[in-house]
Amino acid sequence: MSTLQELVRPELRGQTPYGAPQLDVAVAVNTNESSYPVPQVVVDQIARDVAEVAASLNRYPDREFTRLRTLLAGYLVRTTGEPVTPEQVWAANGSNEVLQHIVQAFGGAGRTALGFTPSYSMHPLISERNGTTWVDGLRDADSGRFDLDGDLAVEQVRRHDPELIFVCSPNNPTGTSLDLDVVLRVYDASDRAVVVVDEAYTEFSRAGTQSAVSLLPGRDRLVVSRTMSKAFAFAGARLGYLAAAAEFTDLLRLVRLPYHLSTVTQAVACAALEHTDTMLAMVEQIKVTRDELVAGCAALGLQPVPSDANFVLVGGFDDAAATWQALLDRGVLVRDVGIPHHLRISAGTPEENDAVLRALKEIA
Amino acid sequence: MSTLQELVRPELRGQTPYGAPQLDVAVAVNTNESSYPVPQVVVDQIARDVAEVAASLNRYPDREFTRLRTLLAGYLVRTTGEPVTPEQVWAANGSNEVLQHIVQAFGGAGRTALGFTPSYSMHPLISERNGTTWVDGLRDADSGRFDLDGDLAVEQVRRHDPELIFVCSPNNPTGTSLDLDVVLRVYDASDRAVVVVDEAYTEFSRAGTQSAVSLLPGRDRLVVSRTMSKAFAFAGARLGYLAAAAEFTDLLRLVRLPYHLSTVTQAVACAALEHTDTMLAMVEQIKVTRDELVAGCAALGLQPVPSDANFVLVGGFDDAAATWQALLDRGVLVRDVGIPHHLRISAGTPEENDAVLRALKEIA
Repeated sequence: MSTLQELVRPELRGQTPYGAPQLDVAVAVNTNESSYPVPQVVVDQIARDVAEVAASLNRYPDREFTRLRTLLAGYLVRTTGEPVTPEQVWAANGSNEVLQHIVQAFGGAGRTALGFTPSYSMHPLISERNGTTWVDGLRDADSGRFDLDGDLAVEQVRRHDPELIFVCSPNNPTGTSLDLDVVLRVYDASDRAVVVVDEAYTEFSRAGTQSAVSLLPGRDRLVVSRTMSKAFAFAGARLGYLAAAAEFTDLLRLVRLPYHLSTVTQAVACAALEHTDTMLAMVEQIKVTRDELVAGCAALGLQPVPSDANFVLVGGFDDAAATWQALLDRGVLVRDVGIPHHLRISAGTPEENDAVLRALKEIA
Repeated sequence: MSTLQELVRPELRGQTPYGAPQLDVAVAVNTNESSYPVPQVVVDQIARDVAEVAASLNRYPDREFTRLRTLLAGYLVRTTGEPVTPEQVWAANGSNEVLQHIVQAFGGAGRTALGFTPSYSMHPLISERNGTTWVDGLRDADSGRFDLDGDLAVEQVRRHDPELIFVCSPNNPTGTSLDLDVVLRVYDASDRAVVVVDEAYTEFSRAGTQSAVSLLPGRDRLVVSRTMSKAFAFAGARLGYLAAAAEFTDLLRLVRLPYHLSTVTQAVACAALEHTDTMLAMVEQIKVTRDELVAGCAALGLQPVPSDANFVLVGGFDDAAATWQALLDRGVLVRDVGIPHHLRISAGTPEENDAVLRALKEIA
């Protein structure tokens, strides 16, 4: 009799599941959540709207999530100034599922996906779990900022000729935005690659940063993925989305599971989008806190990477794993992302930020 | 420049998305939903529980959905009498996602899945969308009941030696349950195949039908999948689940997207499970209506297949597509499942059932 470990797909054998530890600590700044609860006015709206749809949960959801797509398109139009239509928008249970839909449609066995490491660790996982060969491309590690240089990116695209390319702007876990010129050069370096620009953290970017949504017209292989988990402070609602050519989103219907977005998920996300300004109210405060985290770490002699996100990658630790544990012993949970001498720290409330800096100072 | 149709995975080219038409008709009996709304006491509980968790949606959900698994295990223990533990239970956004997790863990390129056609059409779709080769096995079509004969099943398992086997009990779209002896013989005919028994409609089975949950002890390749969409009248909430060996569910952690079940989905499903008896109150009525649908169709000279589900496969139509349209013209939406001379009709309310039978009589 075979054991289950022998029956599982060969590439999964002996692997451990993805996931940051879910520990009960005083200061949880490890998963780039917002530390600010959903405002009461939105809580009330959510409760009202869910109560209104709950009786009809005997019926399947609107498979096309029409109202949600309309509200998401409206949000993109308002914040980017670009003419995004509801037909260009797709959504799923978290941006991970959005990315999985792209990989299931355009990746698969015998196909290759290229990303530039270090970057969001789910890009390789989602690619490989769906049979796509992953190529770990390089960033400019020497800069200390993990920038992605245009020449270096183009050279790797030409060399690997992948079907899928992932870039992340701002990049996770390093925090810096990608110049749109680099996105354009990556796109033009291939005549067949679907290019995914993961903008999960874009609302936290410093002034003057432009969204790749502005590049969509005329580029039907370009996709911009987004999430409500971060700036919208809505990680528990699991709502990711993307904008692309209408023909592109139409093809995702072939791989999504039917009725993938529940009636309740649609209602809850729509309620939040109707209160967009309220939901995003803390973004400016979080950017201030993030900049204070950068300054505070620098003052401690550490090497924080300048950030356009709600987190900061901090270098300069002799032993990152030991520091991670020493912080946890002080009730502060940060993320060891596997980059030697670095830890990633989310910008929480000013009080949480002070606690992080105090703990770092104690340890140093 | 390549067009998107050329870039998409070859097996998807020219395909159309899965999905029954979502039309606004008087009598929608095409997707095996419950026609009975969620009871007010559960609506109130859902509203209260969602209001309670909404403020904390800034945080990610419990990735292990501990409370939900405990309640689902309790439901299985109570209804099957078997000692199912929370560690044996897995859940996802609809049973389709549960099945996808199984395929992603145990299928993939170079592997084969076997089902016995006609059966649930998502089994081949989920297998193929995830790179697994699908083999369309045979049922006993001559019986007029589309039974799955044990000898025929065993012979096909031995011949194709698949890594995954799907059986469906009661079978969709034919409606009849599978004898547990056949499940056992299918399981024993392979020493490596993961055997999935899809019990989406099991609560509607006629008296004396046993769940395959009773076969789980000692069989670590056996999986029983379930859903809250049908008997629980909760299709809009998207909650599917399975029971299997704890080691089996543990492996599914390798392929699930992290935080795949939102905080709201977990809360809503838990609220319904706390009111299990209320949610299932209409099951006996639906079984009566289903039996009346069988009798009524037989009285019209049609050939209904005896059913353990909340739907009836009805044979005896000269031209199923023409009858489908004629019914729609009378405000009755049923499902053309692609079996010549057959249509599948859900058991709705007694009034809907009367309308269906009236329309069928008119057309005949």
